[in-house]
Amino acid sequence: MSIKAIDFTRIREYETQLLAKAMPPNSLGRLGSLALKLALIKEEPLDSLSLLLFASDHGVVEEGVTHSPQQITYQQCCNFASGGGACSLFASLNHATLSVIDVGVNHSFAKQDAVVDCKIGYGTKNFLKGPAMERELCLQAMEVGRNRVHLAVKEGAQAIAFGEMGVGNTTSASAVSAALTNLSVSEITGKGSGLSDTELLHKVAVIEKALELHPQRDPLSVLCNLGGYEIAAICGGMLEAAEASLPILLDGFIVTSAALVANAMDEHLHEYLIPCHQSGMQGHRNMLESLGCGKPLLDLQMQLGEGTGALAAWPLVRLASHLLTDMTSFSDAQVTDSTKLLQSMGLA
Amino acid sequence: MSIKAIDFTRIREYETQLLAKAMPPNSLGRLGSLALKLALIKEEPLDSLSLLLFASDHGVVEEGVTHSPQQITYQQCCNFASGGGACSLFASLNHATLSVIDVGVNHSFAKQDAVVDCKIGYGTKNFLKGPAMERELCLQAMEVGRNRVHLAVKEGAQAIAFGEMGVGNTTSASAVSAALTNLSVSEITGKGSGLSDTELLHKVAVIEKALELHPQRDPLSVLCNLGGYEIAAICGGMLEAAEASLPILLDGFIVTSAALVANAMDEHLHEYLIPCHQSGMQGHRNMLESLGCGKPLLDLQMQLGEGTGALAAWPLVRLASHLLTDMTSFSDAQVTDSTKLLQSMGLA
Repeated sequence: MSIKAIDFTRIREYETQLLAKAMPPNSLGRLGSLALKLALIKEEPLDSLSLLLFASDHGVVEEGVTHSPQQITYQQCCNFASGGGACSLFASLNHATLSVIDVGVNHSFAKQDAVVDCKIGYGTKNFLKGPAMERELCLQAMEVGRNRVHLAVKEGAQAIAFGEMGVGNTTSASAVSAALTNLSVSEITGKGSGLSDTELLHKVAVIEKALELHPQRDPLSVLCNLGGYEIAAICGGMLEAAEASLPILLDGFIVTSAALVANAMDEHLHEYLIPCHQSGMQGHRNMLESLGCGKPLLDLQMQLGEGTGALAAWPLVRLASHLLTDMTSFSDAQVTDSTKLLQSMGLA
Repeated sequence: MSIKAIDFTRIREYETQLLAKAMPPNSLGRLGSLALKLALIKEEPLDSLSLLLFASDHGVVEEGVTHSPQQITYQQCCNFASGGGACSLFASLNHATLSVIDVGVNHSFAKQDAVVDCKIGYGTKNFLKGPAMERELCLQAMEVGRNRVHLAVKEGAQAIAFGEMGVGNTTSASAVSAALTNLSVSEITGKGSGLSDTELLHKVAVIEKALELHPQRDPLSVLCNLGGYEIAAICGGMLEAAEASLPILLDGFIVTSAALVANAMDEHLHEYLIPCHQSGMQGHRNMLESLGCGKPLLDLQMQLGEGTGALAAWPLVRLASHLLTDMTSFSDAQVTDSTKLLQSMGLA
C-alpha cells in the first residue's frame, strides 16, 4: 500500500468556506491555514489524539555520547506508564491517550509496570561495531509501529502523535538525519541532556565515523545501520497513519528523524505531518525544512522528547480542525459581511 | 487598595523544585520559566479560566477609520452570546468560561440576546470633537470591569482573560497606547480589518490630531479622552484581578492598550500579565516591550480580537501551572538523577 497524495486543488473550496466565517478575512492567521491543511487531510473535526511513545536503548552509548546512565530509559518508562513524567501530565491535561510501548529497552519489565510489551530486542548494537539492528529485527520494529497505529485508529484515534524515550537516541537521530539529508553532522548534532563543548565534538566525531562505516543511503539501510528500535517503530507507525489519511502531529528532534526515514520511503508522507514544536535541539529547523515542513506551531525552546511538543500543540490543532465545521458564518450569525458589502458598493 | 509587588526572591525555591523533576535541567524551556512566574503570582495549579469579553462602540468611526459598519458590534455580541464566533468555539474547546458584556454598544439588546447588561452608554463620542467619555462614565466603566472580575473569582475563576468587540477600537487603542508610551502613532497603527495604504495614513492622521487635541498624559485622562468603554472596563478588571493576585492572560492589541493604562495607574500591574499572543497588528510587539512583557507564548499571526489569543494559549498556561505541583520528581519516580550522579562523582 502507498500513501495517497493530497489533492491540493481542493484548497479553493475550503478557502471559500473559511472566508464565509463571521470574522475579517485572514484574521486567524496560521490557525486558518492549518484549518485548510487539516481539511485536505481529513475533512472532520479532530477530538481524539493518541500518543504512541516508543522506548528503546542504544548500543552507541558505550562510546560515551551521553551523560545519562542507560537505566534511565527503563526507569522513565515505568514512571510514564504509572502516570508520572511530563508526557503523562501533558496527555492528561490536554485530553490525549498515552501508550508507553517497549520495543527495545535493555530491561525486562514486570507485568505490573504497565509498559506495553512489543519487545524486539534489548537495545541496538553499537553502530561503530556493525549495524545497529539486523534488517529482520528493524522490519519487525516498523511492523510494531504499524500495528499500534492500526489499533489506535480502531480505538477511535482521529489524529496520531509519536513520542520516544531512549538514552542515547539523539546520537542515533543525528546520524540517521545526516545520512538522509545534505545537512552536515555538526549542523544537526546537539548537546542532548547536557554535554560540554568537548563532549559535543566527540559525539560529532562518533557520528561521522559511523557514516563512513555505513555508506549505504537507502532509507531502510540507514534505519538498520544507524537507527534505533523506537525510531523504526515510529517510522512504520507514520507510514501506517498516512496510509490511513490521518494527520500526524510531529514532535521534536528524534521523531523528526523518523519522519525523514518514512518520507524517504514514501515521498507523500510529509503531506500528512503537522509540525508542532520547534525543538531547542540544534538543527531541528533544518531537518524540518528538509522534510518540506513549514514553521512549527510552537517555539517554546523545549527539548525533552516524550512527545511533549506534540501534546503541547494538540489543543491548537484541535481548534484549527473545528474552524471549518463549527464556526458560525456571516449568514448563520446574521452578521454583516463588510468585505461583501464593500464589494457590492464597488469599493473593494 | 493597590497591587502587591511580586517577591522575586522566592524564585530560587521554585527553581529548586523544578530541577528536582524527573527530566534533564531546563528541558521544558519557556514552559518551565512560565511555571516559575505563575508560582510567584499564585502557588496553585490553574484549572479554570474566565474570559470577560467587553463590547462597546466608538464615536470616532464617523471619521472613516474602518470599513466595518457599526452594526457589526451588536451583531457579533449576539452571535458570541448565543455560542457563535471564534471566541465561543475557542472557549468551549479549551474549557474556559465566556461572558459577553455590553458596556457601551450603540444598540439596545433584548433579554433573549443573552448579552450581560452593564451598559454605561451608547458608544463613546468622536474624540476629534471632545473627550470620548465623561470622567464619571469612564470611572463607571472601570467599576463594571472590577465587579465582573470580582464575580468571576467568586464563581471559581483561578485565572482571568479579557476579550473585546467594538468596531473602531483599534483606532482608540492606538491613540491610548501612543499617548502613554514613547512609540510613534505610525509605529503602532495598523490596517485593522483591511484598510488600504491611503486609508491607513488617514487613520494615523486622525490619531495624531486627537493626541494634539487632548494633551493630558495622566492615565485616567488618556482613558477618558481617547479610550472606549470596553478599554476602561478591561483596565478596571485588570487592576481588580492583580489586586486579587490572579494571573491575567494577556490577549492582543486592544487588551494590551488597556494594560498600558492599568500599568500606568499601578506600576506593579504588569507583573501579573502572562503575554499570550503576538498580534498580527503592527506595533503590538513594541507595546508589549513598553509594558515590560517578554515574548508571548504564541505567534500565530492572528488579529481577530475577541480574546482569541488568550483562549488559544490557555492550555499552555494551564500545563505550566501544573508542573511544580503535579509532575513527578526523580525521587518520587525512582529515576536516576544523572546531574546529581555526575556531581557526586565530581564530574559536573
